Amino acid sequence: MTKARFDVLGIGNAIVDVLARTEDDFLVAEGLHKGSMNLIDTERAEYLYKLMGPAIEASGGSAGNTVFGLASLGADTAFFGKVADDQLGEIFSHDMRSLGAHFDCAPLVGGVPTARSMILISPDGERTMNTYLGAATELSEADIDEDIVANAAITYMEGYLWDKEKRQKKPSARRPAFRTKPGGRFPSAFRTASALIRFREEFLDLLQTGQVDIVFANEPEVKALYQTADRATALNALRADTRLSAVTLGGEGSVAISGNETFHVPACNVRELVDTTGAGDLYAAGFLYGITHDMDLEKSATLGNFCAAEVIQHIGPRPEHDMRQAAEQAGLL
Amino acid sequence: MTKARFDVLGIGNAIVDVLARTEDDFLVAEGLHKGSMNLIDTERAEYLYKLMGPAIEASGGSAGNTVFGLASLGADTAFFGKVADDQLGEIFSHDMRSLGAHFDCAPLVGGVPTARSMILISPDGERTMNTYLGAATELSEADIDEDIVANAAITYMEGYLWDKEKRQKKPSARRPAFRTKPGGRFPSAFRTASALIRFREEFLDLLQTGQVDIVFANEPEVKALYQTADRATALNALRADTRLSAVTLGGEGSVAISGNETFHVPACNVRELVDTTGAGDLYAAGFLYGITHDMDLEKSATLGNFCAAEVIQHIGPRPEHDMRQAAEQAGLL
Repeated sequence: MTKARFDVLGIGNAIVDVLARTEDDFLVAEGLHKGSMNLIDTERAEYLYKLMGPAIEASGGSAGNTVFGLASLGADTAFFGKVADDQLGEIFSHDMRSLGAHFDCAPLVGGVPTARSMILISPDGERTMNTYLGAATELSEADIDEDIVANAAITYMEGYLWDKEKRQKKPSARRPAFRTKPGGRFPSAFRTASALIRFREEFLDLLQTGQVDIVFANEPEVKALYQTADRATALNALRADTRLSAVTLGGEGSVAISGNETFHVPACNVRELVDTTGAGDLYAAGFLYGITHDMDLEKSATLGNFCAAEVIQHIGPRPEHDMRQAAEQAGLL
Repeated sequence: MTKARFDVLGIGNAIVDVLARTEDDFLVAEGLHKGSMNLIDTERAEYLYKLMGPAIEASGGSAGNTVFGLASLGADTAFFGKVADDQLGEIFSHDMRSLGAHFDCAPLVGGVPTARSMILISPDGERTMNTYLGAATELSEADIDEDIVANAAITYMEGYLWDKEKRQKKPSARRPAFRTKPGGRFPSAFRTASALIRFREEFLDLLQTGQVDIVFANEPEVKALYQTADRATALNALRADTRLSAVTLGGEGSVAISGNETFHVPACNVRELVDTTGAGDLYAAGFLYGITHDMDLEKSATLGNFCAAEVIQHIGPRPEHDMRQAAEQAGLL
């Protein structure tokens, strides 16, 4: 089999993040559950933005961050996501293409604006997201370039894509990715993210019917998925349902699970935890780079931890450094 | 005399910064003088943006950064500057108001977009700016609220405001500030910034005709102003031309000069110099906070150095921390 043209094709909501520090009191006053991702409408977005402190803007989106991280590591990547033809859309498109990721979905014209997520960063580095999905929900089958799907070694989707249909009942843009599964040639990878709260049964069905080959989640998500408070029980249930899974454990690092094998890799040293935004996305980037470049699962998980550690030491959802260079210096590439 | 309603009114170009790391090779290839501020048109902006790496966006502008820094220290502030009614304009307006600065200039409708500056950050932390002025140049006398001018203890202007008239020959928005001078009640402060290169003779005239009370500049600018390579010669010429001046000396800190008095204050310790964007602006913020809050010149310069040190340790032109809290913890407030 010849090498695929793209190591990873990511499909996700094309979002620009608006990041600001906050005190936890504000979250309480506004009824925001710390660490959550809340979907908001225009009115709520305007209300929260007015109350929000000074912010910086940075391209984000879960799968977008993962594709960016992969590109920074030197992988060949592509991304499907929908922006509008506005200034935030230009920012997202520029950043996605700036490291060589293929991104060619036509911007939405004359409709709602580009999605933005107002991210409130607590003093302990935890982030609470308030996302206005805007144009991101307009991603449709028409945006799916079948040639790219066919030429990607792995197709990776974020759980937040499901938010679209729940709310709008539009044709899905995620199905083409799963469609490639039957032949077994194009594994599909999937990150539940906190969308799990809204789609537990659907996600469980995806796993148990074999539609997903590789699953990314954090520990609370896996526990919620299997409705257990016990880590071992949760991980073993995941082991039974997936061919390969990688679970982040916060300060304890991460664990890769495949069949009878389990690899626990401790977290990298972190000088100062500033902002956890993007941690899970960048973990997935490192891990996916590893498994598409002949690394074993332990090395792949180590690279995932390494990428996650970079992104939590500054404000913003994507690495500030050239991750290929950084990983080489750390002896990981 | 009753306390003025505003400690400082800033007047400047309302700009959103687009910041990305670069290698110095790129600056050479594109004919960019490291450390400079270049004015660019739409075509050049599009060209450079395509070549530029992944960026983050943050509200900027020289006087805008100073007003923001002052507000973060707890000063009462106002700002005059022109944005367009677009997404970048909303971002600038939000950030300016988020700490309580009064900002009420009507956005430009149906014209050019909000100004943006593409800032390339070299590995040594030096920044090279490429500014498309857009709507910023449309600031006019109509935007000057005389009530605010009359109620500001100090009116502060950035040298980049001059770029407007040189290029467009439009009515000036800076004159109202100078107009307040004759009564002696409202001192005017002025930062030459690198606009000095384009307006040396005009700036010298401003100083020598007593239109400016307080001058901010860095060492290369003062040397260029008086056409000398000798620091002492330059500073003494500035002493003769101004009532009060404050000159930043890079790693050597800063010097405040008034009459026969000279106060040299060493720089604060910096763990890692990441991005010098905003250093001079935040120095001015700390210094202006001091002199509007009964601090002596030495303490004012110390607070200036402290604010500059914060902003150069992360990417972006404005402090990430609550500067009042930080300065209190450092025993400076």
